[in-house]
Amino acid sequence: MSWPQRVTITEVGPRDGLQNEARIIPLDRKIALIDRLSATGLGRIEAASFVHPKAIPQMADAGDVMGAIQRWPGVTYIGLVPNEVGARNAIAAGVDEISVVVSASESHNRANVNRSVAESLEGIGAVAALARGAGLPWAAYIATAFGCPYEGAVDPSRVIAIACALREAGAYVVALGDTIGVANPRQVFGLVSRLRDEAPGPMRLHFHDTRGMALANIVAAMEVGAAQFDGSIGGLGGCPYAPGASGNVATEDMVGMLHGMGIETGIDLDALLDAAWFAEEIVGRPLEGRLKRAILRPAGQP
Amino acid sequence: MSWPQRVTITEVGPRDGLQNEARIIPLDRKIALIDRLSATGLGRIEAASFVHPKAIPQMADAGDVMGAIQRWPGVTYIGLVPNEVGARNAIAAGVDEISVVVSASESHNRANVNRSVAESLEGIGAVAALARGAGLPWAAYIATAFGCPYEGAVDPSRVIAIACALREAGAYVVALGDTIGVANPRQVFGLVSRLRDEAPGPMRLHFHDTRGMALANIVAAMEVGAAQFDGSIGGLGGCPYAPGASGNVATEDMVGMLHGMGIETGIDLDALLDAAWFAEEIVGRPLEGRLKRAILRPAGQP
Repeated sequence: MSWPQRVTITEVGPRDGLQNEARIIPLDRKIALIDRLSATGLGRIEAASFVHPKAIPQMADAGDVMGAIQRWPGVTYIGLVPNEVGARNAIAAGVDEISVVVSASESHNRANVNRSVAESLEGIGAVAALARGAGLPWAAYIATAFGCPYEGAVDPSRVIAIACALREAGAYVVALGDTIGVANPRQVFGLVSRLRDEAPGPMRLHFHDTRGMALANIVAAMEVGAAQFDGSIGGLGGCPYAPGASGNVATEDMVGMLHGMGIETGIDLDALLDAAWFAEEIVGRPLEGRLKRAILRPAGQP
Repeated sequence: MSWPQRVTITEVGPRDGLQNEARIIPLDRKIALIDRLSATGLGRIEAASFVHPKAIPQMADAGDVMGAIQRWPGVTYIGLVPNEVGARNAIAAGVDEISVVVSASESHNRANVNRSVAESLEGIGAVAALARGAGLPWAAYIATAFGCPYEGAVDPSRVIAIACALREAGAYVVALGDTIGVANPRQVFGLVSRLRDEAPGPMRLHFHDTRGMALANIVAAMEVGAAQFDGSIGGLGGCPYAPGASGNVATEDMVGMLHGMGIETGIDLDALLDAAWFAEEIVGRPLEGRLKRAILRPAGQP
């Protein structure tokens, strides 16, 4: 069995996690969370989403977050953008990298950004031009790549076609999103293999853990060459436009598994667990991550 | 990738689950749970543990459980026994099959049954003779096969040596137990491969989901030939002698994943989810299983 020697993790909790919290987390708590995450050895943090504040009030302070966090050397701070206005704001706020999203299913894309998939791809072209102008790399997520809350099954060929279009537009990474946590290891094995062969280039996987299959899916994806994954600290998150969705796989659970398997991440697991406890504290409710409950909390921790 | 076409599941919730509940579940609730499980298509149910009632009061009514449940044709009802007295009681109660346990680590075996591993293996020989006399098959668990709460790492060669001794004594199945949920997919891949090659014969895997890795471990085990797994309805369970342990993998989560992968189990997932909700109801607290929270509960369900 060939697993990678090293895996690169992108922490998306401050964005994909906090944007789904019912209450708005205060700016200073967001900054404190990101600063803690920066100190764990994580190399990549999606810090905020530059969406219209009416659409997602939880992210209205995206620019303030970017302006106030400590910028650790070697850490890439990423901003998610839905359109050109968002891209301009993200660039002005000083992000290191831009993420864009398009859904594989028309219904989810419509619910998410009120556009057709074709319109979204066109919009991504405009964002790409802005990123290029600013000298920033940009990555593209394909949401609902493994299933849609409205349409059910999603044709893998459709995902591959969108991936090809995104590569052609200049995406430096294509990330497949299991937005509602329905993917299973056989499906992951199949779709990731096709992506590798039919739309070759760097790829990332973004698994929600709704049905507890995220870690199994990560193992399956590694077996066909994937070595980049998203995680959300503590298991923060969900998707406001995907009924029944829960958070991303907890970053600390993923790192615990990878380290157990002898796969390097560059991350200090103890520091990551501290951040997971802190995430739980700032949202004020128990989060889904398992490892922090399996390991006794050190005395003196919050 | 070669996954099995069909997987056989042993439901252990009524034993491994209910024996760990702080309060004693009333006899009629246990019977109702097992009867529901029998109606799901499950072929194997570990119904009770025939231990001394002072050691585990939760299992004091083991004989009454066996006497009162509906015996579905095609379902094997299993009793766990710690010693000869237990074996006699289990046989008298009419079990179809006997399970025995020995730990791979001395400390855990001592905590569990106050014997050395060698003494346990000797005791298993006596139980085996009783089972043979009654014409019953018997299976053997090796607990703490992937790690011990007291000793930490467990030498795989020790596990293989115990497995060989158990096969020699006549165990028709050897089951590896990840009692504290520390196994990772690479470790599972390695130990299951060795078991397959160095102690060949039917094998079963019993994963606790303490760190959320159980489904990933099941996928890894299937890749090296395992096709028999334990599950606990709703995720009921733990181990009273293993600090920090939580329940087995939730049977319905495992079945949901397997069916998604096109692997047959013979089980009706909707009926299994009904049983998971019922398990949650009788213990009166939320259980760890994920699928029952991901799927909206049909109206009219308890």
